[in-house]
Amino acid sequence: MKLLHTADWHIGRTLNGYSLLDEQKYAFKQILQIAKDEHVDGIVVAGDIYDRAIPSTEAITTLNEMFKILNIDNHFPIYAISGNHDGAKRLNYGRDWMEFNNFYINTLLEESFKPIETNDTQLFLLPFFDPMDARVYYQKKGLDEASVKDIRTIGDAMSLVLDDMYKLFDPAKKHVLVTHFAVSPSAKDIDLTSETTSKVGGLETLNATQFDKFDHVMLGHIHTRFASPSENIRYSGSPIKFNVKEAKTTTNKGFYIVDTTKKSERTDLREITPGTDLIVLNETWETLVDPKFYSKQPVDQDWFAITIKDFDRTKHVSTNIRAQLQDIYGTVVELDYKNIENKNTEAESQDINQLNDESVVDQFFESITGNELSKEQKSIVDDIFVELRSE
Amino acid sequence: MKLLHTADWHIGRTLNGYSLLDEQKYAFKQILQIAKDEHVDGIVVAGDIYDRAIPSTEAITTLNEMFKILNIDNHFPIYAISGNHDGAKRLNYGRDWMEFNNFYINTLLEESFKPIETNDTQLFLLPFFDPMDARVYYQKKGLDEASVKDIRTIGDAMSLVLDDMYKLFDPAKKHVLVTHFAVSPSAKDIDLTSETTSKVGGLETLNATQFDKFDHVMLGHIHTRFASPSENIRYSGSPIKFNVKEAKTTTNKGFYIVDTTKKSERTDLREITPGTDLIVLNETWETLVDPKFYSKQPVDQDWFAITIKDFDRTKHVSTNIRAQLQDIYGTVVELDYKNIENKNTEAESQDINQLNDESVVDQFFESITGNELSKEQKSIVDDIFVELRSE
Repeated sequence: MKLLHTADWHIGRTLNGYSLLDEQKYAFKQILQIAKDEHVDGIVVAGDIYDRAIPSTEAITTLNEMFKILNIDNHFPIYAISGNHDGAKRLNYGRDWMEFNNFYINTLLEESFKPIETNDTQLFLLPFFDPMDARVYYQKKGLDEASVKDIRTIGDAMSLVLDDMYKLFDPAKKHVLVTHFAVSPSAKDIDLTSETTSKVGGLETLNATQFDKFDHVMLGHIHTRFASPSENIRYSGSPIKFNVKEAKTTTNKGFYIVDTTKKSERTDLREITPGTDLIVLNETWETLVDPKFYSKQPVDQDWFAITIKDFDRTKHVSTNIRAQLQDIYGTVVELDYKNIENKNTEAESQDINQLNDESVVDQFFESITGNELSKEQKSIVDDIFVELRSE
Repeated sequence: MKLLHTADWHIGRTLNGYSLLDEQKYAFKQILQIAKDEHVDGIVVAGDIYDRAIPSTEAITTLNEMFKILNIDNHFPIYAISGNHDGAKRLNYGRDWMEFNNFYINTLLEESFKPIETNDTQLFLLPFFDPMDARVYYQKKGLDEASVKDIRTIGDAMSLVLDDMYKLFDPAKKHVLVTHFAVSPSAKDIDLTSETTSKVGGLETLNATQFDKFDHVMLGHIHTRFASPSENIRYSGSPIKFNVKEAKTTTNKGFYIVDTTKKSERTDLREITPGTDLIVLNETWETLVDPKFYSKQPVDQDWFAITIKDFDRTKHVSTNIRAQLQDIYGTVVELDYKNIENKNTEAESQDINQLNDESVVDQFFESITGNELSKEQKSIVDDIFVELRSE
């Protein structure tokens, strides 16, 4: 079968307060058009469909419309999972009715052990989960207590999950796994430019060798396809650029069209043309306000992230820097300057929403006491969360 | 056809912080059982399905399960609308897939002009809306500007809506309207014990005579069936008691089973037995702590709302009143006392969530300036909101 593999739509995301919804709709239209042109048999959306667990009304309406166009209007089966940004239980609403029209969406670990069968392929839809979810699941399933407690890392959990999937393998078919994690051949090889490393306890990333038995692993989570750990274990990347770091790369975003009966190839890639591109400028003030320079910029349709280099703020105290640049460039979504003397450094901060409950307790303890939790204390914290989640 | 008419489930509601979810599930089981026993052809849920626009994850999971049991497991068609408590656009998610299995849910005015057709009945599902929604809808539909501006009250809006529905009437069939408003033969006849009066601009309630052309009007909004304006225009009431005022009534909650080809009758009522009843006590301290009194109370399973009458707090300064009563009565969801001298009176306050945007502006203006908005000012405010909503 022919599958379109996309991921990390993050519907509802903003960039410094600017809505990306129009850009997301523009990318969606291209995905739809190519799906139609190439007569794909289904669309894989590998998690982080929304940007937040409780999306805005506008984000919900937009996503519903996109799914409707793909699945109801154009009869494409959808194979979707939730990612770490999605609210798994919220996104679960209505899924049983969606199946009436070949729209499959899994958001809970327990839903992952029923592959979708086509004539030549078994599709396993494994949403993002954390080791705690696996503990709860395997505890309910009757795994002995010691083995449940041995689930410490996402790698531990994944071994159990994959073994259960292998039992369901039909040897006459190809096997596709759709999931949402950080996967790498080795941690240092990976270029995590656009998404924090997987925050699940213990090990940060999964190892690609774990997935050897699958013909294709279609991943979400990391926003660049260049982070793909191997030829058949791939990130499609997000359909649009989400931040200034990404904007600095000149390559287009995209998605894959994969024939599941064949090996993946570089030619599977389909590029997405940005509607509003994000242009990064790093120039002196004199250059930025020079018509010879800015007349060559696409100032009418694009967004700009501008860093003024070698800037002496004292010489411009009476200038409204932002207003003047907006007059020239239109939408300036980010503005920064580097002094001649003081070089600004970007502040590093951690988003608490990116951490699991366990890590929040760990880090809180450490910031208050100055000490890390001991192994015994960590174990107690783990057990408390398992108990809480079982309720 | 035979319809089960229920409304105002308010899934996720709490009573002074106590979750009503178990009680709601208990009532649901009875609705399901009677639907099966009486072989109904469909379940009407007339709005306020959730208690809040952004319900808790637990509320979403519970509602999804209830709908699944009714519609997927037991093959009952569902005819549902959103009420003023529901987030119309959020609850809209997935509705197009639900229709694949005869689960119809309308949450937007524009969806209301496509009746569901059965062999003997046309069902019109009209969700809660306000005059502004009607303005936006009729403006888009191309109604002339003057007529759009004439939509001031919910009565104005309803006249237009109903006229459009009448045009769709099949004279060979019965006509059922499912909607969610305060409707009364005349404002003073109505006993609004459990829900605030409709907060839509201008007129507070709709008049029953507006709905004369329908054979049956199945209403939600007011939580007691005793507020029903006529024999064929009825509130089913909520399936459970939501507050202490309601608990004081000794009658059970319930729902209706209606044969749409016949007139409504008193015998349509099916009662729901509470699982955990809410017992209201208004007694002296001495009586409350007297074993002769409390041994007759259902102290093991029920919830209590207790008012201690003729209470002299100074004689009990060292007593932990609440702890002592909880030892005796179990769950005390409300505790109040009336001094011998000072009679407590209940504070009246207005819930801002119960007001439409227009009224919030009105009241804010009044509380700041001491003056009401003039007719011209009101008109400007109206127009601004119409414009905002069109966007």
